[in-house]
Amino acid sequence: MSVLRVGLLGCGTVGSGVFQILSRNRELLEQRTGLSIQVTRVATKDFDRAREAGVADELLTDDLMNVVEADDVDVVCELMGGLEPARTAILAALKAGKHIVTANKALLAHHAADLFPAAAEAGRELAYEASVGGSIPIIRALKEGYVAENIQGLYGIINGTTNYILSAMADSGRDFSDVLAEAQQLGYAEADPTFDVEGVDAAHKVAILAMLAYGVRFDYRKIPTEGITGISKADIDFAHRFGYRIKLIAIARLQDERLDVRVHPTMIPETSQLAQVHGVFNAVYLEGDNVGPSLLFGRGAGSLPTASAVLSDIVAIGRNGGARRVPDLAYEPRFVRDIEVLPGEEIRSEYYVRVHVLDQPGVLGQITTVLGGHGISIASVLQLDQPTDNKVPLVLVTHTTTEGNLRGALAEIEQLYCTAGPSTFIRILENLS
Amino acid sequence: MSVLRVGLLGCGTVGSGVFQILSRNRELLEQRTGLSIQVTRVATKDFDRAREAGVADELLTDDLMNVVEADDVDVVCELMGGLEPARTAILAALKAGKHIVTANKALLAHHAADLFPAAAEAGRELAYEASVGGSIPIIRALKEGYVAENIQGLYGIINGTTNYILSAMADSGRDFSDVLAEAQQLGYAEADPTFDVEGVDAAHKVAILAMLAYGVRFDYRKIPTEGITGISKADIDFAHRFGYRIKLIAIARLQDERLDVRVHPTMIPETSQLAQVHGVFNAVYLEGDNVGPSLLFGRGAGSLPTASAVLSDIVAIGRNGGARRVPDLAYEPRFVRDIEVLPGEEIRSEYYVRVHVLDQPGVLGQITTVLGGHGISIASVLQLDQPTDNKVPLVLVTHTTTEGNLRGALAEIEQLYCTAGPSTFIRILENLS
Repeated sequence: MSVLRVGLLGCGTVGSGVFQILSRNRELLEQRTGLSIQVTRVATKDFDRAREAGVADELLTDDLMNVVEADDVDVVCELMGGLEPARTAILAALKAGKHIVTANKALLAHHAADLFPAAAEAGRELAYEASVGGSIPIIRALKEGYVAENIQGLYGIINGTTNYILSAMADSGRDFSDVLAEAQQLGYAEADPTFDVEGVDAAHKVAILAMLAYGVRFDYRKIPTEGITGISKADIDFAHRFGYRIKLIAIARLQDERLDVRVHPTMIPETSQLAQVHGVFNAVYLEGDNVGPSLLFGRGAGSLPTASAVLSDIVAIGRNGGARRVPDLAYEPRFVRDIEVLPGEEIRSEYYVRVHVLDQPGVLGQITTVLGGHGISIASVLQLDQPTDNKVPLVLVTHTTTEGNLRGALAEIEQLYCTAGPSTFIRILENLS
Repeated sequence: MSVLRVGLLGCGTVGSGVFQILSRNRELLEQRTGLSIQVTRVATKDFDRAREAGVADELLTDDLMNVVEADDVDVVCELMGGLEPARTAILAALKAGKHIVTANKALLAHHAADLFPAAAEAGRELAYEASVGGSIPIIRALKEGYVAENIQGLYGIINGTTNYILSAMADSGRDFSDVLAEAQQLGYAEADPTFDVEGVDAAHKVAILAMLAYGVRFDYRKIPTEGITGISKADIDFAHRFGYRIKLIAIARLQDERLDVRVHPTMIPETSQLAQVHGVFNAVYLEGDNVGPSLLFGRGAGSLPTASAVLSDIVAIGRNGGARRVPDLAYEPRFVRDIEVLPGEEIRSEYYVRVHVLDQPGVLGQITTVLGGHGISIASVLQLDQPTDNKVPLVLVTHTTTEGNLRGALAEIEQLYCTAGPSTFIRILENLS
């Protein structure tokens, strides 16, 4: 049986999971692959945690370079997260002739432009199934399963924290801060939840998916990104009345010669597949020109699900026997092209709009006049007659328009005498199976 | 750009789809793979249909051997279906040094025992992503994505015809024969629908999935298989009252040292992921010891979805450059073991039971006494009081018991004076996410 020697950088949540799986499913892995996967070195600052995960003392080091440059390591697994020293360590490992497996989506979103060429130059693999969707084999599906597909749109629930929070808000009627506190207690949200709740984590991940689906290079920092902190109980209730659920959806599709890639709370039909994705689960839904609607669903995070994806990459490297058989980014490097990200104000969508108005006659007429003046027509209206302090929410759904138009109209509406306070809008995705 | 030369055996629904995709997505495929896929020969009896699909006359032959043994063919795609001459042609092609791509699940279910060893001996690939779940990349996911998973259960909706019929029956309240006729008109069911509606097609497919998931060899003809012809509107309505949907579910899991593999109409929770799979769509749900609940969803049949899966296999063979990098059946051949299929009477399940009884006092007591005598306890009962001809349906759900126990009890119940006509039962799967 051929031996594949693995060095870990980091032995926290995911690294411990790798040890746990190797310990309990070793025989199964050997029967399936003919490979004996041996962890030969582990770099970590927290020796105690690594020992708890079953790492023998002689494997431990606190110096990344002891793993990166070791003669007894074939594959380096970067499981530290963060930009540095992860980036430097990976580049050094490639230079030392190691294959790389990483779960680090932030790093790939930021540094795809130097990491992947470095891997190509070194003739080594840079694998990252665990970086998006945890246990969901979406990277492999995009590189191999859907290789014949012109992908017409890709829509993901790819952040478990926000999906947990939105699901719990919808199910229990509690508000954001209340549910966030609970999610933190349960370990589903970090002490500093900014990256998750502001959509940054999902933006990192959709940047990777967009590169793979379309063979494009772009500045991930230009991705229009909006988190879920502004979602209220009221919006969730109104969404329900219109037949929608609110989810944090990451979108990637081509619009003419630009990349429409974005992350924001989205109203999707309650009967759609993505609307059934509850709690910390993730799913990626895509439409291909041949396969039509397709969906992959599973756990998007956690020690064992993520470690399982890491192991699938380690195995693939072992099976490839050193060959770089599939391009790292799903397209032959010479065909990868630069593309401009569609700016936020040019996004075309239907919109849910909530305006607080004074409870007096003629208000709807004034507001629809302003919308009409910006070329926006209305699909449906919900006017409620339970005024608080003489104010009522006016809720409407527009037909498709650009976000620039909508923002212009809302700025004008907020100046009307009949308007009491700021307005809110949420994008709608109607055509999901 | 390296050229991969493909010969087709059969140019019907799937073969035409392969041509259509190659014609419209050729550039995309080349950008992703660096491969130029050229169809060099097409064997078919129906030249006119092939010409309609865009096949040039000089490629056409009516002799399979002209493709199988041709010097200008690297990969033979067997898209004829059926056992013979498909089997003989594949064996001859392997002998002639060709790699094989097939969508033929019946053939693999029947002849895995001779086809896969022949491929191994020839040192060629035998790829079959299109054989199960059409466009769903489930074969690849089982071989590679979930390679580190001890799979605790696999549950599939893998026959589109029956899922269409059951969905339409549930949505419209029509009965089986009515909906079947409609499905035949729409092209979702064959003129002779036996293979689909009796569960045989699903049994072929789950045989393949079970081999891959568990590394086992068994007699696929022993798979307990029950179709949907006995499902009535009444059962669908009762299922709904208990919070279930009826789907034709293919199951594969290990029970002790035997393989619990079967196909039958199944009541599953209305809130489960599989219950949301409507119409002709397919889905495979599995639970892994690390990844937990996972689901892959998409079109299970049709020209383009199936052809897309065929092309993913052709590309993989091209990318492998002749290497057999993953075992054909997901386990190294020396670790594949023989296993006994769990016989039908030993299946353990909860059951929905419908008995027609006379509308008189004491009936429930008599029936529960018989069930209790066979060790079966009751979870819930629905007794209706709209008698027809003095008969009422008595509907109950049992706790877990063996099918042997249940059948014994029902045989006895049918002999009771209070019983008017045969009883019906449907298996229940409770613990699906």
